[in-house]
Amino acid sequence: MHPFDDAIALQPAADGLAGRTSTAYANFIGPYGGITAAQCLHAVLQHPDRIGEPVAFTVNFAAAVADGDFLLRPRPARTNRSTQHWIVEMVQGGEVVATATALTAVRRPTWGGHEAHMPEAKPAPEVPRVTRRGVAWLERYEMRFLLGMIPRDWDGSGTQESLSRLWVRDDPPRPLDFPSLAALCDVFFPRIWLRRALQTPLGTVSMTIYFHATAAELQAAGAGFLLAQARGQGFGGGYFDHAGQLWSESGTLLATTHQVMYYKE
Amino acid sequence: MHPFDDAIALQPAADGLAGRTSTAYANFIGPYGGITAAQCLHAVLQHPDRIGEPVAFTVNFAAAVADGDFLLRPRPARTNRSTQHWIVEMVQGGEVVATATALTAVRRPTWGGHEAHMPEAKPAPEVPRVTRRGVAWLERYEMRFLLGMIPRDWDGSGTQESLSRLWVRDDPPRPLDFPSLAALCDVFFPRIWLRRALQTPLGTVSMTIYFHATAAELQAAGAGFLLAQARGQGFGGGYFDHAGQLWSESGTLLATTHQVMYYKE
Repeated sequence: MHPFDDAIALQPAADGLAGRTSTAYANFIGPYGGITAAQCLHAVLQHPDRIGEPVAFTVNFAAAVADGDFLLRPRPARTNRSTQHWIVEMVQGGEVVATATALTAVRRPTWGGHEAHMPEAKPAPEVPRVTRRGVAWLERYEMRFLLGMIPRDWDGSGTQESLSRLWVRDDPPRPLDFPSLAALCDVFFPRIWLRRALQTPLGTVSMTIYFHATAAELQAAGAGFLLAQARGQGFGGGYFDHAGQLWSESGTLLATTHQVMYYKE
Repeated sequence: MHPFDDAIALQPAADGLAGRTSTAYANFIGPYGGITAAQCLHAVLQHPDRIGEPVAFTVNFAAAVADGDFLLRPRPARTNRSTQHWIVEMVQGGEVVATATALTAVRRPTWGGHEAHMPEAKPAPEVPRVTRRGVAWLERYEMRFLLGMIPRDWDGSGTQESLSRLWVRDDPPRPLDFPSLAALCDVFFPRIWLRRALQTPLGTVSMTIYFHATAAELQAAGAGFLLAQARGQGFGGGYFDHAGQLWSESGTLLATTHQVMYYKE
């Protein structure tokens, strides 16, 4: 079984769905936020009453997730003819550690035309792979940076702009689906590390994803690389945000994502 | 009383906070989404247990809000030492019509440096005011477009890009606060109208706001204009999204915002 499938596996329980954090996706403290996001989304997607595919998804990291068991409580707050609004709570020891909302919808063919075009990029095999490691979740992604890698030296030099662009895919490769795409949306190193070249303590507090990929487009993306980019926006008073986009290797916009992180100094 | 204050007024009720839609902010069908967002946020901000200022806020428009009474149910899902995660439901006739999550936090002084800089713009008084009207909420905002006004002729000609940039403020002018800033984040005309020059039926389904303004910066912005811009990202399968930013007249980044809209054809 792929470590991702193992990590997002949920079992029916008395009061929701039971899961367990995965050592394969461990971060410095607790799990990689992207895997928490994927677990919350998976809880919605495997709900028997779910209608359609995910369109919008917001996850709020309310507290540190402890290594071990958790309970997920997905609830359809509103069901319309072809759309559904979900509220999810992730609970450990009776306390909420994450909340999420999701919109799922039966998509219909309409006019379309993405405006966020994939930037020109050297093909993935020609770009060196990042070999710097340290925590388990970094081993779960093959990253090849085109620009905006985190600093080699934490010397406080920093940059004026925090745009990063990389080829990325699951390691080992795994056919893309909505939960894995959600997890990939959190793959960006903290923008503030680029801006400051200091390892400020920090953590994501909220992430929103808009899914643009249809199920067919996900299937076409397969286990290929995604081009992912993110750019910081506002930094101050202990919080900063970024805006990002993810395209398939062939240039299809799959998701747009935004997140806000807490930082300490 | 300013029509905005009247619109967001909430009264304690048995099972939450009671409000009423405002004819001053009426849209084609039901209320302007920005006022629904402001009501949801206001429910959090006036809660006696609330800690700190809003940092992240997501509102999901689950169903058409009917003209008339509604009930708001804000609930702290998790309270930490200096942060708090909220879940809000807006209910009409026993059914959920909107959901929201919010992160409020006591902000602390830290390093800061916004990366999303205000674009150069002709001063607001030199830019002609939009005089096209039709629905009540448009009367509540003074809009002066620098670029990307919706088409004069709905002739299907459209554009390749949907960037809009405008000066905007409450009409009559009103000192900025978090609820009014939230409402202003929804002021953008639907990007797809620019792209297609067709009046496609549509509606916002989810909007996220990251607040960068401190209370002091809001106070400094006062009743002045904001520079607001938004740009479309992905359009297809009945949904499109945009990313936007709002600055004070003097160039301080106040909020970043993203939303996804449903469209019909």
